[in-house]
Amino acid sequence: MSTETEAGSLLQYLAELRQAVDKALDAWVPAVTAAPTSIHEAMRYSLFAGGKRIRPILAISAASAVGSETTGVENAAASLELIHTYSLIHDDLPALDNDDLRRGRPTCHKVFGEALAILAGDALLTLAFEVLSRLPDAGAESKISLVEELAHAAGTVGGMIGGQVNDLEGERKTPNPELLESIHRAKTGALLRASVRIGAIYAGADDSQLSALTAYGEHVGLAFQIVDDILDVEESSEQLGKTAGKDRAQHKVTFPGVYGLARSREMADEERVAALSALANFDARGDRLRQIANYIVQRKA
Amino acid sequence: MSTETEAGSLLQYLAELRQAVDKALDAWVPAVTAAPTSIHEAMRYSLFAGGKRIRPILAISAASAVGSETTGVENAAASLELIHTYSLIHDDLPALDNDDLRRGRPTCHKVFGEALAILAGDALLTLAFEVLSRLPDAGAESKISLVEELAHAAGTVGGMIGGQVNDLEGERKTPNPELLESIHRAKTGALLRASVRIGAIYAGADDSQLSALTAYGEHVGLAFQIVDDILDVEESSEQLGKTAGKDRAQHKVTFPGVYGLARSREMADEERVAALSALANFDARGDRLRQIANYIVQRKA
Repeated sequence: MSTETEAGSLLQYLAELRQAVDKALDAWVPAVTAAPTSIHEAMRYSLFAGGKRIRPILAISAASAVGSETTGVENAAASLELIHTYSLIHDDLPALDNDDLRRGRPTCHKVFGEALAILAGDALLTLAFEVLSRLPDAGAESKISLVEELAHAAGTVGGMIGGQVNDLEGERKTPNPELLESIHRAKTGALLRASVRIGAIYAGADDSQLSALTAYGEHVGLAFQIVDDILDVEESSEQLGKTAGKDRAQHKVTFPGVYGLARSREMADEERVAALSALANFDARGDRLRQIANYIVQRKA
Repeated sequence: MSTETEAGSLLQYLAELRQAVDKALDAWVPAVTAAPTSIHEAMRYSLFAGGKRIRPILAISAASAVGSETTGVENAAASLELIHTYSLIHDDLPALDNDDLRRGRPTCHKVFGEALAILAGDALLTLAFEVLSRLPDAGAESKISLVEELAHAAGTVGGMIGGQVNDLEGERKTPNPELLESIHRAKTGALLRASVRIGAIYAGADDSQLSALTAYGEHVGLAFQIVDDILDVEESSEQLGKTAGKDRAQHKVTFPGVYGLARSREMADEERVAALSALANFDARGDRLRQIANYIVQRKA
């Protein structure tokens, strides 16, 4: 398969998955006509703002890599986007990153006010667990494993909130490789890793499959973050759909800041290669995950 | 049993349960020495601030009313206090109720800053679901029912966040009985109702027991809120451990505001009586719930 054909076919695959995920999200999140309407409007404003849905896509693709029976996996995948969106809304608040622009539009608190933005984040976080508890095509054992996986990945000990705290406090510290890795392994890495694992658990992965996919998720997660940091330096706000150059302005600890741009690009590629080699024992059903690893490193926004 | 003896015995019972709940909370929440230490300090600051633990106590007492086998119910009960504490931290933020005093101490954001307070609330909310997913003495079916119950009660549709939104928006509306009831049924009522139901589900209540306990929880929840509103008018900040008279200052829709103090007191007692009559088919194992209904209406803080 030529690179061009692969890219064409991948983009179509990603578009189809995004559509499936958006349909699931639309079904789970109360309509804007449901009372109290203002919070459902705020939740939907941030949720349907043109996100890439990379976490749900990783979950669905990991499920496909494990087995053919993955009915309803888009519902489990949707819970990851609910968590991701809540974290963006809270991160953008004045008390945290104080960002006015996200995905090319004013941030949630700029449109709905801070009070409603805080509550909309809380509501998306809460809804993520309600969705997992009500998955229509999964058994209780599977559902409770997914709740545990998601809660741990979103939490304080090695999870997303812990990484966010380290990131905030890192603004006052001298950047160094250990601090950088500890921040990103938790802040973005934990949820990306959990995305792959949630798809794998949903599809009934055995221990060796789960362990290989976990390694894949860790490498892809790190590659994703390195590329994010590079794009923040290289691209304009218009291309990114969010304020560019914010990392530097806020003294964030970043890969280009610690290693320089050239070495950061090499590192992203090393993580990509490591992600691919973690998939060595998967057959053609792992091809989408392979293509996604390539795509994550080559993306421009 | 004389009223005096009942009160004495109840206070000892409540103190024992509080101790059991605090022990469970202490075991679930990471130590202040666990990295990142600052957020665990903030979480514990608000969690161990001398709360009455009324929600966990309702859960444990409802479990006892249903059956004798309730090993580990204090862990499920702890999840309710995690949710309640997160809601207090977020409610107290400057963008919401902007309160400086809670349980006699400066609020979380006054001590740790707004960023950490927002994240500490997020972390307590997330941890509540992690706790339910890891209950040591419950099966998967039971655990997933508890997750669904808690997530729904804490959510936007008839749940705590929905009530909070109505409360915020109610500040700009003319107080009336329907608005008042809709706010409180969701804002505090949903979680108190869920407290009783979570204990009942944990103990394996049958449909008729669950339905009677749900009615009890609804009446006790409303009584609790009416008394809270009355205390806000009658008591000093010192007695309450939080800023008194805030409801009026913030134009909150309250029971004394809509019905006056005298009628509010009558209404609280009517709810107490209705709660007791919902327990008609329970034997002596329901006595603690009966005593708690009386206690909630008679309390002074």
